[in-house]
Amino acid sequence: MIQHKRDKDAKGTWLTYRPDIKILDCTVRDGGLINNHFFEEAFVKKVYDTCVAAGIDYMEIGYKADKKIFPAKDNGAWKYSDEDMIKKITGDNKGATKISVMADAERTNYHEDILPKEKSCIDIIRVATYIHQIPTALDMVEDAHQKGYETTVNLMAVSTVHEKDLVEALDVIAKSSADAVYIVDSFGSFYTEQIRELTDIYLKAMEGTGKEVGIHTHNNQQLAYANTIESVIRGASRIDATINGMGRGAGNCPLELIVGFLKNPKFDLRPILKCVQDEFIPLLKNNKMEWGYQIPYFITGQMNLHPRFAIKMRASENPDNYLEFYDQIIQEES
Amino acid sequence: MIQHKRDKDAKGTWLTYRPDIKILDCTVRDGGLINNHFFEEAFVKKVYDTCVAAGIDYMEIGYKADKKIFPAKDNGAWKYSDEDMIKKITGDNKGATKISVMADAERTNYHEDILPKEKSCIDIIRVATYIHQIPTALDMVEDAHQKGYETTVNLMAVSTVHEKDLVEALDVIAKSSADAVYIVDSFGSFYTEQIRELTDIYLKAMEGTGKEVGIHTHNNQQLAYANTIESVIRGASRIDATINGMGRGAGNCPLELIVGFLKNPKFDLRPILKCVQDEFIPLLKNNKMEWGYQIPYFITGQMNLHPRFAIKMRASENPDNYLEFYDQIIQEES
Repeated sequence: MIQHKRDKDAKGTWLTYRPDIKILDCTVRDGGLINNHFFEEAFVKKVYDTCVAAGIDYMEIGYKADKKIFPAKDNGAWKYSDEDMIKKITGDNKGATKISVMADAERTNYHEDILPKEKSCIDIIRVATYIHQIPTALDMVEDAHQKGYETTVNLMAVSTVHEKDLVEALDVIAKSSADAVYIVDSFGSFYTEQIRELTDIYLKAMEGTGKEVGIHTHNNQQLAYANTIESVIRGASRIDATINGMGRGAGNCPLELIVGFLKNPKFDLRPILKCVQDEFIPLLKNNKMEWGYQIPYFITGQMNLHPRFAIKMRASENPDNYLEFYDQIIQEES
Repeated sequence: MIQHKRDKDAKGTWLTYRPDIKILDCTVRDGGLINNHFFEEAFVKKVYDTCVAAGIDYMEIGYKADKKIFPAKDNGAWKYSDEDMIKKITGDNKGATKISVMADAERTNYHEDILPKEKSCIDIIRVATYIHQIPTALDMVEDAHQKGYETTVNLMAVSTVHEKDLVEALDVIAKSSADAVYIVDSFGSFYTEQIRELTDIYLKAMEGTGKEVGIHTHNNQQLAYANTIESVIRGASRIDATINGMGRGAGNCPLELIVGFLKNPKFDLRPILKCVQDEFIPLLKNNKMEWGYQIPYFITGQMNLHPRFAIKMRASENPDNYLEFYDQIIQEES
């Protein structure tokens, strides 16, 4: 008989059913970074209805950006996620899927724009922060918590953070009112073994606080789904995913893949497949939007760089001149 | 300080440089399953020149199929890989990249079609076999070994093999003359933790024999690259990859991603990027060939089914009717 060397630190295997796992669909929020949040209401409604039908726990509908910093003429409605806009999507008969918005540290007028929970359609405020903004982020968390919301801290670009600083940051987050903290691979640069180590670090830092650990990946290296699975097996319980992997640059962990993987009876794959074929494939085929893995994204990912260079290149007249792009990136980094 | 829980059984990390690692490019062989091996000579020559320039250890140029079983009118030259065709590609001044052919058990007239090594341009014979064909496969290995070739056994569709049978199969392969044995995820159905366990099983079975373990993945679940990396970190030393991931159905582990990952100074990424933009992107853009991840492939992959159903669906009039496909597959399997 073969003695399997099971990972002693794993919280499950691919066959384990973990009822604690919650999925957040961030299609419209992360996808909004492709089109400056100019999604039509009908599209957002389709995504919402799909999330409700598929049993997805949360749908992130957009940002809560400060209109004084980001003029409304440059951005679609989902940059601001005003209450009346959200109500148009959820309707009077709001489904079981909770509504999330992302509030960027230093770019949100949170005292005014985030209403008391009882006056809002929103259920959860996710505060996105770079490490140097953590004091602001935690003030936002306390503000939202006191207003009655669930809250999370999404610590971005962790691939550029020194481990010592990360541990200090997690230490203060552990003392906050946040319900969860996310590992965010903003550049899609992490390998699976790094995600496993990070998951251990985050879980250890949150031990005894009741706070959950989440995972948000990007597909620059075709690792978004692989890294999500590994983080979940290691003990992360909150998953970010997007329908058909829609999201800035190389996109995100595809919702359909992770729902298929989880085999959790509370989720239903069928509405997601229907939504992909009805809404997402036409966007790609008509070249209305581009997302998903392309070679320039793996180049920035493997070099731990923001994908903005690759996104710019894909929008240029020579979107497939990979060699020139590679040589430029190497030169600029040296 | 954080105490990293390093994997005690790992043979390296993503930063380790492993000089024992060898890459085999199987673009033309696996890609030939898309177009019945009807590649133009100029294309095959470009792939060969790219492999030589990039320092790739082996290039698999095609199959050695029996013409009595597979009539030449139905298949391109790379189904048979005749010596005169290979010579047209390698030229008189053969590069450092060794030439591989794949010989399918029970579908190769190996006594006649595989010449003594000194009369051949081929360096390595890879014998592809299902588990019930292993006696034939091992006879082919001995035949090729005695003729002077390097040899490998590529045990296909291992996701459908019971572990007890696998261990017995590996036991007889360990006693053969083969230089290496491959983990072959024919259906793209394995999760990363399964690949780690399989790599351990294969390595243990080959212990003390000097035989190497290889990894051949498919991208049905967007895990081809992730699973290849994990197998390598665990100790596999032979990697199959294809340029731009070209290969049947969802395709294979992309050569450019794995070369970028390895950071091995013997490999050069630049010629591969150039070849992708010059040769592969036009094939995709002009709809001459299709390969790479699509939703139907993850459905067959997660259900551990041969991708033939998904390939057929992609070639039908409704290539994007994912829900109907899913319902059909579920119904047929129940």
